[in-house]
Amino acid sequence: MKKLLAIPLMMFMMQAGYAQTTDAQLQKNRAFTGAVAKQRQYNAIYQLDKNDPKVIQKAIRNINNALNDPRLKGKLQIELVAFSQGTDALLKGSEYEEALKALIGRGVIVAQCRNTLEERKIPMEQLYDFVALVPSGNGELIIRQAEGWSVVKP
Amino acid sequence: MKKLLAIPLMMFMMQAGYAQTTDAQLQKNRAFTGAVAKQRQYNAIYQLDKNDPKVIQKAIRNINNALNDPRLKGKLQIELVAFSQGTDALLKGSEYEEALKALIGRGVIVAQCRNTLEERKIPMEQLYDFVALVPSGNGELIIRQAEGWSVVKP
Amino acid sequence: MKKLLAIPLMMFMMQAGYAQTTDAQLQKNRAFTGAVAKQRQYNAIYQLDKNDPKVIQKAIRNINNALNDPRLKGKLQIELVAFSQGTDALLKGSEYEEALKALIGRGVIVAQCRNTLEERKIPMEQLYDFVALVPSGNGELIIRQAEGWSVVKP
Repeated sequence: MKKLLAIPLMMFMMQAGYAQTTDAQLQKNRAFTGAVAKQRQYNAIYQLDKNDPKVIQKAIRNINNALNDPRLKGKLQIELVAFSQGTDALLKGSEYEEALKALIGRGVIVAQCRNTLEERKIPMEQLYDFVALVPSGNGELIIRQAEGWSVVKP
Repeated sequence: MKKLLAIPLMMFMMQAGYAQTTDAQLQKNRAFTGAVAKQRQYNAIYQLDKNDPKVIQKAIRNINNALNDPRLKGKLQIELVAFSQGTDALLKGSEYEEALKALIGRGVIVAQCRNTLEERKIPMEQLYDFVALVPSGNGELIIRQAEGWSVVKP
Repeated sequence: MKKLLAIPLMMFMMQAGYAQTTDAQLQKNRAFTGAVAKQRQYNAIYQLDKNDPKVIQKAIRNINNALNDPRLKGKLQIELVAFSQGTDALLKGSEYEEALKALIGRGVIVAQCRNTLEERKIPMEQLYDFVALVPSGNGELIIRQAEGWSVVKP
């Protein structure tokens, strides 16, 4: 009886696109160990547009993790672009000064969107002196990807 | 009188970059039916870095929707990479075991970031047995995009 | 004594990947003025999958900022694709009608995911008449990126 019911259910699931997953498929998945980095150089732009401390800390941690990834070690250029509320991380007095400087020490470009400064009426002097300015954060994201850079939004 | 007032307003809007939108433009937009999939093969990496059940469910739904898109049917390879809080979805006892297995049954790679396991001190045994491990989730996102894969963050 | 302690600390930091950042590095960062737009044409797809008014407003503001970026002026095609909860922005009666029409007036494609309409049981008639329909928002994101478009998630 159970068997008779099971067949239509299975057929329904298969039609719905959900075929039963085989053990072989599960084992094959488990055996995967990650993409292989065959290029000499990699580039990535990180988007920071929130002032939630968890998101800012995650962005910094993510960037360090990418730089430490044995597959990318020594061949990864990163740019962090802040805009919208993400700008708060780059304002003097924020708790991220040392972490940001350390990123620059590792070769990361740390940049702020000029547009946001105008919209939020933030004078340039309120940013840490080491911060770069780009015309717009969104333009930066678009141009970098068009150049072949990867994009990550933490 | 109304007409006399309308002209400076229109000029102001045009200067601000907001020209009046014509009916022809609106109709042309409505007639758009989506990008055309001309390639033989597509690849996409999905980022899962939150443990909000709505985000996890959206990620799973999004992946199934992409696989079901008539334009991509049968020519789309997907990888789902979990890191940061997103790891919670892959821990034994989570409510996503069947949905994840079904994704693997549809050819999706389901992978976890090793770095996160170290940072969060999660022993590998707590993950579902079928989960793949990659050196870092961020490295995976960067390498895949450099290989031409699309990226989606649900 | 201080010096004696400083050396192992510095070596630890260097091993951990945190070399001391030099003033030259900080000044070099500050001198950066943004990526240079060398291509004739740029394309970007914007993802809208939330109904948080702050996110919708940010998406609209971001798109206008990208179109206004002096580096991209006159050579940027944008598509905004709404799905999941982002659909709410395109429903008749939303507060975004004028802003969306203005985007179309600037050449932006404004599109909605068909899948979401089915899942959320929203009749097509509830959308603004000018909205385009695409088979799936996720498919659109994937195909566009494969065509070389940049992706931005506000």
